[in-house]
Amino acid sequence: MPLPPETGSLFTLTTGPVTCYPEVLAALAKPVLSDADPAFRTFYTETLVKLRHALPAPAAAILQGEPVLGLEAAALSLVAPGDAVLNLASGVYGAGYNHWLSRHAGVVREIRTDFDAVIDPEDVRRTLANHPETAVVAVCHHDTPSGTVNPLVEIGAVVREHGALLVVDAVSSWAGMEVDMGWGIDLLVTGSNKCLGCPPGLTLLGISSRAWAKMRANPAAPRGSFLSILDWEGLEDPGRPFPFSPSVAEIHGLAAGLDRYLAEGTAAVWARHARTAAAMRAGVKAMGLALWPANEATAAPTCTAIRLPDGVEETALRSKMREKYGVVISAGRADTWNRLVRVGHMGPTAEPIYTPLALTALAGALEHVTGRTWDVGSGVAAALRIIDGAP
Amino acid sequence: MPLPPETGSLFTLTTGPVTCYPEVLAALAKPVLSDADPAFRTFYTETLVKLRHALPAPAAAILQGEPVLGLEAAALSLVAPGDAVLNLASGVYGAGYNHWLSRHAGVVREIRTDFDAVIDPEDVRRTLANHPETAVVAVCHHDTPSGTVNPLVEIGAVVREHGALLVVDAVSSWAGMEVDMGWGIDLLVTGSNKCLGCPPGLTLLGISSRAWAKMRANPAAPRGSFLSILDWEGLEDPGRPFPFSPSVAEIHGLAAGLDRYLAEGTAAVWARHARTAAAMRAGVKAMGLALWPANEATAAPTCTAIRLPDGVEETALRSKMREKYGVVISAGRADTWNRLVRVGHMGPTAEPIYTPLALTALAGALEHVTGRTWDVGSGVAAALRIIDGAP
Amino acid sequence: MPLPPETGSLFTLTTGPVTCYPEVLAALAKPVLSDADPAFRTFYTETLVKLRHALPAPAAAILQGEPVLGLEAAALSLVAPGDAVLNLASGVYGAGYNHWLSRHAGVVREIRTDFDAVIDPEDVRRTLANHPETAVVAVCHHDTPSGTVNPLVEIGAVVREHGALLVVDAVSSWAGMEVDMGWGIDLLVTGSNKCLGCPPGLTLLGISSRAWAKMRANPAAPRGSFLSILDWEGLEDPGRPFPFSPSVAEIHGLAAGLDRYLAEGTAAVWARHARTAAAMRAGVKAMGLALWPANEATAAPTCTAIRLPDGVEETALRSKMREKYGVVISAGRADTWNRLVRVGHMGPTAEPIYTPLALTALAGALEHVTGRTWDVGSGVAAALRIIDGAP
Amino acid sequence: MPLPPETGSLFTLTTGPVTCYPEVLAALAKPVLSDADPAFRTFYTETLVKLRHALPAPAAAILQGEPVLGLEAAALSLVAPGDAVLNLASGVYGAGYNHWLSRHAGVVREIRTDFDAVIDPEDVRRTLANHPETAVVAVCHHDTPSGTVNPLVEIGAVVREHGALLVVDAVSSWAGMEVDMGWGIDLLVTGSNKCLGCPPGLTLLGISSRAWAKMRANPAAPRGSFLSILDWEGLEDPGRPFPFSPSVAEIHGLAAGLDRYLAEGTAAVWARHARTAAAMRAGVKAMGLALWPANEATAAPTCTAIRLPDGVEETALRSKMREKYGVVISAGRADTWNRLVRVGHMGPTAEPIYTPLALTALAGALEHVTGRTWDVGSGVAAALRIIDGAP
Repeated sequence: MPLPPETGSLFTLTTGPVTCYPEVLAALAKPVLSDADPAFRTFYTETLVKLRHALPAPAAAILQGEPVLGLEAAALSLVAPGDAVLNLASGVYGAGYNHWLSRHAGVVREIRTDFDAVIDPEDVRRTLANHPETAVVAVCHHDTPSGTVNPLVEIGAVVREHGALLVVDAVSSWAGMEVDMGWGIDLLVTGSNKCLGCPPGLTLLGISSRAWAKMRANPAAPRGSFLSILDWEGLEDPGRPFPFSPSVAEIHGLAAGLDRYLAEGTAAVWARHARTAAAMRAGVKAMGLALWPANEATAAPTCTAIRLPDGVEETALRSKMREKYGVVISAGRADTWNRLVRVGHMGPTAEPIYTPLALTALAGALEHVTGRTWDVGSGVAAALRIIDGAP
Repeated sequence: MPLPPETGSLFTLTTGPVTCYPEVLAALAKPVLSDADPAFRTFYTETLVKLRHALPAPAAAILQGEPVLGLEAAALSLVAPGDAVLNLASGVYGAGYNHWLSRHAGVVREIRTDFDAVIDPEDVRRTLANHPETAVVAVCHHDTPSGTVNPLVEIGAVVREHGALLVVDAVSSWAGMEVDMGWGIDLLVTGSNKCLGCPPGLTLLGISSRAWAKMRANPAAPRGSFLSILDWEGLEDPGRPFPFSPSVAEIHGLAAGLDRYLAEGTAAVWARHARTAAAMRAGVKAMGLALWPANEATAAPTCTAIRLPDGVEETALRSKMREKYGVVISAGRADTWNRLVRVGHMGPTAEPIYTPLALTALAGALEHVTGRTWDVGSGVAAALRIIDGAP
Repeated sequence: MPLPPETGSLFTLTTGPVTCYPEVLAALAKPVLSDADPAFRTFYTETLVKLRHALPAPAAAILQGEPVLGLEAAALSLVAPGDAVLNLASGVYGAGYNHWLSRHAGVVREIRTDFDAVIDPEDVRRTLANHPETAVVAVCHHDTPSGTVNPLVEIGAVVREHGALLVVDAVSSWAGMEVDMGWGIDLLVTGSNKCLGCPPGLTLLGISSRAWAKMRANPAAPRGSFLSILDWEGLEDPGRPFPFSPSVAEIHGLAAGLDRYLAEGTAAVWARHARTAAAMRAGVKAMGLALWPANEATAAPTCTAIRLPDGVEETALRSKMREKYGVVISAGRADTWNRLVRVGHMGPTAEPIYTPLALTALAGALEHVTGRTWDVGSGVAAALRIIDGAP
Repeated sequence: MPLPPETGSLFTLTTGPVTCYPEVLAALAKPVLSDADPAFRTFYTETLVKLRHALPAPAAAILQGEPVLGLEAAALSLVAPGDAVLNLASGVYGAGYNHWLSRHAGVVREIRTDFDAVIDPEDVRRTLANHPETAVVAVCHHDTPSGTVNPLVEIGAVVREHGALLVVDAVSSWAGMEVDMGWGIDLLVTGSNKCLGCPPGLTLLGISSRAWAKMRANPAAPRGSFLSILDWEGLEDPGRPFPFSPSVAEIHGLAAGLDRYLAEGTAAVWARHARTAAAMRAGVKAMGLALWPANEATAAPTCTAIRLPDGVEETALRSKMREKYGVVISAGRADTWNRLVRVGHMGPTAEPIYTPLALTALAGALEHVTGRTWDVGSGVAAALRIIDGAP
């Protein structure tokens, strides 16, 4: 009884779009009011305040598209013509950001690591020392296609000391682990569609006053455009008209996601993400598989990247998992394509009890693909020890 | 018992965001699958096919933002550096399109009318004859801030005869009245958030093969960008990866809106929009108010624009309607601000029986604001005669 | 374009099932937990406490079926074999209650009025004086098929003075007007499916300690039965198991309805019911129609019963209203069948702005059925004067 | 981080109320129409026709309460005063049915087995031969508190041969395994709230013409009562008024559940229930636990009953599963209380991939409660072999 292609999977354990919280789905179905209705404006302002609190950030803005909009908008808004930029590339997403940083920049320098490693803050310090004119530094916090997390606290400290502005892609880390603009972040780009458990459709931005100032002063920053950040400044004030219609239903969902996040408690949410990933890693290793990150200490709490065993083809493995067990996980991307698979632990699926399910589907699919048995029993037992371990 | 600001209005009779169909709201709450899930890809392809059928258009694409994204993307994609462009400006939206057309164009010429009138196709013919190099013509079908509809069939014929490409803003006409790419339209920009009765969040595009060719040949057309149309070509093919995550929940809503539109029958949907607007106009006039369009024959079937009586302030009138009766309508914009108010007839509210409700709230609010009585009885009686008239 | 039979009406202005509040519909879609889940038990207890507060009542219970279950259960539980019972019958529902009261009673006496009148408390006093053995008195507060409200405060005082127990059918009055168990009510039977704006499926009971005592002492009271009230005693205690599975989804809806009712404020809710009915009555009379209640002071705030003009057939009229305008109203029942029609003002539709809509549909349909014009203009103008009148 | 009592469990793997299908939850939120609206009547008739098809049954009826209503109503409707009845009691539910059968019966005889065994059809044959006057036989198909399934085909053949009417409690078997009225069943009582994946609130009845005849002829059969089956006869005819308001929202959910069941294919649905239970049993045994049924061949495909190891207290075990892993399972009831626990495989949770999750939570909780390790690895490996076995 293989799952037919047109039938939805039972468990979406991907790195995005992720399974949404039931409260979020229910909120998406709320009646749509006009954005000019005072009731909607009140609600929008309350949501922005909650967002500011949840990021946390001195100022917050919402853009009306999933975070690739925000990432593009951030690069175009922050980088002024002629700026020297430093891009930190430890993975596919970090490296790819060059595309947008280069649009206005005078020069984009890059520190690049292997894609199973992370950025060394000392390399950043050296490069900034050699290029004191550097105005903007960009880093991807959790480079999802590798499942690795860069040392953001240390990088932030180095950049702040130097004086450049730091833009951070925190799309798949935020709300699943600690991220704090106080670490020296000027522009935090994230979304509702990963660890917050909402559908894709909104960018969430945390913005320092330095970032606002630099964007305002940038003649090339988009204005009167869907790509603009500046157009959305000051919208906590209900008297200020929207530049265009916000995505009302998505905002309803966002508010529900924020309510849930704050009510559960951010530290508690981060803890269950961490616990789930730890259990998954233990299970994966006990089953005889290898993690993708060269150093397990850099493995993300929101995604477990697993090196494909020799001869195992990514598409065959994932298809089998879906077809036989109804479980969807993520592939690699670009340089990591067909070299790893990824199990997401984001929002509702960041619960340790999902690990035996994921391990069983993985082991079963591997057996089909490799024609030999995999020790699912040891995997699940190892996961259970972590689940039940000391907090 | 005035309605408090934080309480949603009972009736949203605006020109957008509009009240959504219940089927659409329910669909927004459907479980979110990964965009890499075969079940979602199958569904997405089916939705694109339905969209192509509903537009109707030779090819369709969906962009992940409300139609201002599509309008900006269309101008940037279609207009190549150096192109001569003709913009037809009979209202605030048409005139405003200049902003995006000018980004790449060599020259943008404009035919401008008073904002209570519409474009004369003979003017278009003359201008094109004088400027045979014109490569792109742009027109807003229903210029919502005026509630007037341009003669698109005639304009399309003139442009096609000349050979230029025609881009049409059909955001607030499509799905409420007939629009046909066969009229000579190359790029039809619309959205799900007006007459289709969905929330704001998606641009819907109808694209001719000439338009695809021109965009592909345009070196300045956005690529690898949230503003790109080209990135979304060919996505009916389930094997083709998405450039980034589509707005899954919004797509669920769109599919429900399309199903409803096609099941009711496009002609039947247009007829109830037309009937509702006719009843509203009859009622408004019988109450002693004047329509905004200089020529009632150009009044839109999806929006009734009503000239404000002397001395009546727009904000006071609309606030009173909401506060006393729970009814929200739309203001004018820019040049039409504080000169008219607008009652939307879009999607679920395009039903004749809404007119007595709207007329009563309008009359009651006018009485409060002007201190004299308005003949609501004659208004409602006149509306009823239209509602009950021959089809 | 008549509305096809399979298409849902646009406006349900009936006396039940009524249009539900959006919050209620959303709550119905919440994930279903096991009734043994501590989270559900906590939620159930909280809901019972809210219900007790909203009724208000010294003790509350929920039965798992629409209020006819509760009415039958109340009669069978309260009336012991041999009891003398007095039934107050001013309408179809009051008279019909005899059916269940008689199941166990020794004798059921009845005070019966014309069905456009209400009970005279002095008649009750006289009858109780003549029959001091009377143990139970039953009355229908708002006899919906007549749209009339019995003087419950006065009746309650008389019954309390005498010492009998008073069971009240408050199904279509509660949550639309004041009802207070302190008026001398021992068993208040109502439901979530009228003015609370929930779907049919639950009985809500307010129970005095005297009523609990009488039911416990009644050997014929249902126990171990779907008809039992006693089985549901004490369920505020989360340690007590349910007699059988409660209707989990309906309970979710009920909680949302109660939250809404208490948040808006009970007096505010009653006031908008009263205002809506007053506007409707004014409009109906100005159009030349007659109210059903002989004395308008007894007309319900939750339902306007309109006498059918001579020669107008109920089915023809209501069919026309639905077919031409998408509006559904209620017919009479039994003795009032084909003698009146009823417009409900219950929950979400108890808003004055619905009256022009209802009056227009009524006038239009009457014109079709009678072949003559009806003065809808005067009707709407009269309604507007009430809507805008002093509070 | 134990799950707080007020937080809903992550996985409800109980025998009811069960997790609902997403389509069902969405349908519950559909707008509520009046039951007198032709659109609702059309929908109701269509739903009854689907139900008749899905049961399958020559005639179907819906009662407005969870199946305990139907079971009580069936006993009271079918058993006439003085009837000789035979009750087959292999478990708590079968034995408990005596309570309602006795209400009208002259005599109720019983065949009782141990509650880990099932009825022997030969015993039925013998008893009927000794008591040829037996008019009604009652049996519980799947006696849920034991997780055992009676041999219904054989029992049905024996009863039919004898000529008595057979009433079957198929509440927790129907829609999870084959049940066919052609096996000799006259009154099939089931519900939407188990394997169909809907919330509790409706009884579904399959009724033979013999059963209708017997109920009609029974002077004691409830009429004009919430307990009546007869009142709901013939409601496929849209012209027939409802005896009282049906539970509109629940009917919406039921229709969605039926659509899903028929679209997936009844045999496919039964197969995944069977596969899930088989995997669970294999895992449980491999972990060193014992099944409750004395003969595994009688174990239900919709529920796995597991004997509690010596010294393990039911409440402690289930609390730990919920608190540590967010998983809720069912306890025993009455005679089986504290002797077993039960994992439901009903509707959406009847998917083999749930078994590693359930086994892990069970093993982990057992470790906490017993202070020793349990071999979760062997359990999961054994389950995986069944999941991956030949169909």
